[in-house]
Amino acid sequence: MLHLQIQNSLAERIGRRHGVSEARLRSFCQTHSEKIQTIFRSKAKPGYNFVSLPDDAANLTKVRKFAEQQAKAGWKNVVVLGIGGSSLGAIAVRDALSSEFSKGPKLYVVDNIDPAYTHELLANLDLKKTIFVVISKSGTTTEPMVLYALVKEALMKKFPKDYQKHLVFVTDPKDGLLRRMAKDEGITAFDIPPKIGGRFSVLTNVGLVPLALAGFDISGLLKGAREMREGLKRSKGMDNPALRLAALQYILDKKKDKVMTVLMPYSNYLFRVGDWYRQLLAESIGKGKGAGPTPINALGTTDQHSQLQLYNDGPNNKFLIFMRVLKHAGDPKIGQVLPEEISFLNGKKMSQIIDAAYKGTSEALTKHKRPNVTIDVPKVDARALGQLFMLFEFQVALLGLLYKVDAFNQPGVEHSKQITKNILRAND
Amino acid sequence: MLHLQIQNSLAERIGRRHGVSEARLRSFCQTHSEKIQTIFRSKAKPGYNFVSLPDDAANLTKVRKFAEQQAKAGWKNVVVLGIGGSSLGAIAVRDALSSEFSKGPKLYVVDNIDPAYTHELLANLDLKKTIFVVISKSGTTTEPMVLYALVKEALMKKFPKDYQKHLVFVTDPKDGLLRRMAKDEGITAFDIPPKIGGRFSVLTNVGLVPLALAGFDISGLLKGAREMREGLKRSKGMDNPALRLAALQYILDKKKDKVMTVLMPYSNYLFRVGDWYRQLLAESIGKGKGAGPTPINALGTTDQHSQLQLYNDGPNNKFLIFMRVLKHAGDPKIGQVLPEEISFLNGKKMSQIIDAAYKGTSEALTKHKRPNVTIDVPKVDARALGQLFMLFEFQVALLGLLYKVDAFNQPGVEHSKQITKNILRAND
Repeated sequence: MLHLQIQNSLAERIGRRHGVSEARLRSFCQTHSEKIQTIFRSKAKPGYNFVSLPDDAANLTKVRKFAEQQAKAGWKNVVVLGIGGSSLGAIAVRDALSSEFSKGPKLYVVDNIDPAYTHELLANLDLKKTIFVVISKSGTTTEPMVLYALVKEALMKKFPKDYQKHLVFVTDPKDGLLRRMAKDEGITAFDIPPKIGGRFSVLTNVGLVPLALAGFDISGLLKGAREMREGLKRSKGMDNPALRLAALQYILDKKKDKVMTVLMPYSNYLFRVGDWYRQLLAESIGKGKGAGPTPINALGTTDQHSQLQLYNDGPNNKFLIFMRVLKHAGDPKIGQVLPEEISFLNGKKMSQIIDAAYKGTSEALTKHKRPNVTIDVPKVDARALGQLFMLFEFQVALLGLLYKVDAFNQPGVEHSKQITKNILRAND
Repeated sequence: MLHLQIQNSLAERIGRRHGVSEARLRSFCQTHSEKIQTIFRSKAKPGYNFVSLPDDAANLTKVRKFAEQQAKAGWKNVVVLGIGGSSLGAIAVRDALSSEFSKGPKLYVVDNIDPAYTHELLANLDLKKTIFVVISKSGTTTEPMVLYALVKEALMKKFPKDYQKHLVFVTDPKDGLLRRMAKDEGITAFDIPPKIGGRFSVLTNVGLVPLALAGFDISGLLKGAREMREGLKRSKGMDNPALRLAALQYILDKKKDKVMTVLMPYSNYLFRVGDWYRQLLAESIGKGKGAGPTPINALGTTDQHSQLQLYNDGPNNKFLIFMRVLKHAGDPKIGQVLPEEISFLNGKKMSQIIDAAYKGTSEALTKHKRPNVTIDVPKVDARALGQLFMLFEFQVALLGLLYKVDAFNQPGVEHSKQITKNILRAND
């Protein structure tokens, strides 16, 4: 199970100007402990239904059957056309559980409308071996629909009789353009549960369908999410890791000017969990009267050589969340190769070295009174990812209650969309 | 040539609380205009010598000759072992000028010591077809030396007589471990010019050697950098784009609480220029008495569906730099495929759509009084990258003078390094 260590954010360790005293944190968590149950009680309400997503065994069976069936077709490429909540979960899981060297179908996630990249992609994909997963609740989101239009034309040209075989939709169960097109044209379509928000949808078919098609362990994801949820249900006050993290982040933002939250895993594989969290935090909390810390992604050790100068010695306006992997999937050992000046590296395993680098950084930051916490991840697998997703979703739902904002809407993006549509309509 | 538009940061457009009046900006730029000449006059001094890097024609010829010679060996993989300033420039150029679909040698940049990734890499690379470029000024930087130790052992095992053929070093001309090993073992080594800072070194052999080996247009890079430098030399006060940008960023941070700078290209290919800029800004300015804005990377349109809610509607504490590409390398056109509800997309080129999305976003931010500027990039090529590198390096050198900090040191990373070494030595 994941474990959250918070000592390096306590006033006892970094002082009262930048840290939160343990007593204060404990009493704050006690005061707000009922909010944990509020979330569990609200699980039928719009948005809050993320809590019950891991329980849909019937849907899991359906998706796994579909993926097994499709595996016979021997797809080499699974290409997601989706953006934001429809892409970031799949990317996080893909990059955590595979790499460019992995065998099996390759999962592309096209979450931009870059003209040159789209041209390259379509010129290079072997369409015969490619299945596209188009993800949009309404079917009116510009980016996936632009990409879908281009893909559909290419497929219809090449496979006029059965282009539908190369397409799967993930969309609203009843309404919207994609649902209508699926019915009209006989394209397989999976449901997005009603009332769920895009950024809380990684454990719905939005994440499950493409991940299963590309061969990832979706049962493990759901299992991990359930484990974390049950743990969160049982633990109260400061013992609850989601509340402990939310409380710290809230107090540090409001009272100690830590207006940014840096998520910094010491693992290449966990880096893009940061992109998923970045949307979750920014869209859920960054709203209203200017609430909400700004999320930032970093990577250890890499960013020690890019951002650490600023984090240690620049403005003290950040809260850092480290993620540390306890057991790596591979662990080369250095031979007796290096000369005297750096001979202390000889005979070491890489895991010892990266862990020492993490400790050096977190201790130095602590000495410089920069609040930081660490999430220990036993190993990077589907279960751990499921746990992380549920922990962070719960934490952000709690932040919504603390900041008193609706964590499940995003009014601030409408204006930009409207101007864009007006420009395009005027060009007609 | 690049063009910088700043109207959306002026008080005339977004009000005096969050914008800078044109008159104020003009007078500030006049007052500090002499700093442009200070930099040109200091070009022989440590750090400031980045200005003359594009003039080293003899080195360019040498590197190109070496790359031509090596091309005959038919390397399939060029693998950089380097971190921070020794990796981010090559990554930025590689990702701007190529993609996963490109032909020719593949450029890997290994800038982390992830145990599992390193294991995968070494298990999958065909060493016979691989050349490694080890980059470190001193040869004592932990990350590249750990990776080098593993690579050297693998190479010596496989090619006991001529493992040296698979290695190139880029290091100090005289001193340090790598220089000594190069001499002792007969390994080709290229010089890093003395006194240059890592984060200002993309146009030295740190960037040029691996990029040339992987087939990129390094002459174009240097040409672009020269063009920009000559432009910066000629233009004074507010007409100077580096000063205009530095002045805005400085005033917005100091007087208007814009403590973050978001770099947001509307182009997949330019995204990782953001990682290069992020180091340049953070390590150069984030120091001393807490100076310096925090750099953040974002990508348009992708992050409209992740960060725009926060940028538009959260705390008004950011300054945004958009980058817009005027001519894309490919530009698919949508057919008459989409149904009535979104038929305004039919018949459009993708470039029209992504440009409308950029305009929608910048206009919405402007309406919400969020200061933003735009850099127009005529097209993504080596010349444009050279121009961007020189523009930003000059801008950050100017920021150093404005904030009165030494832009060329990084004292804030020493503490972490020391603790890490102590832990590893104690484990011996």
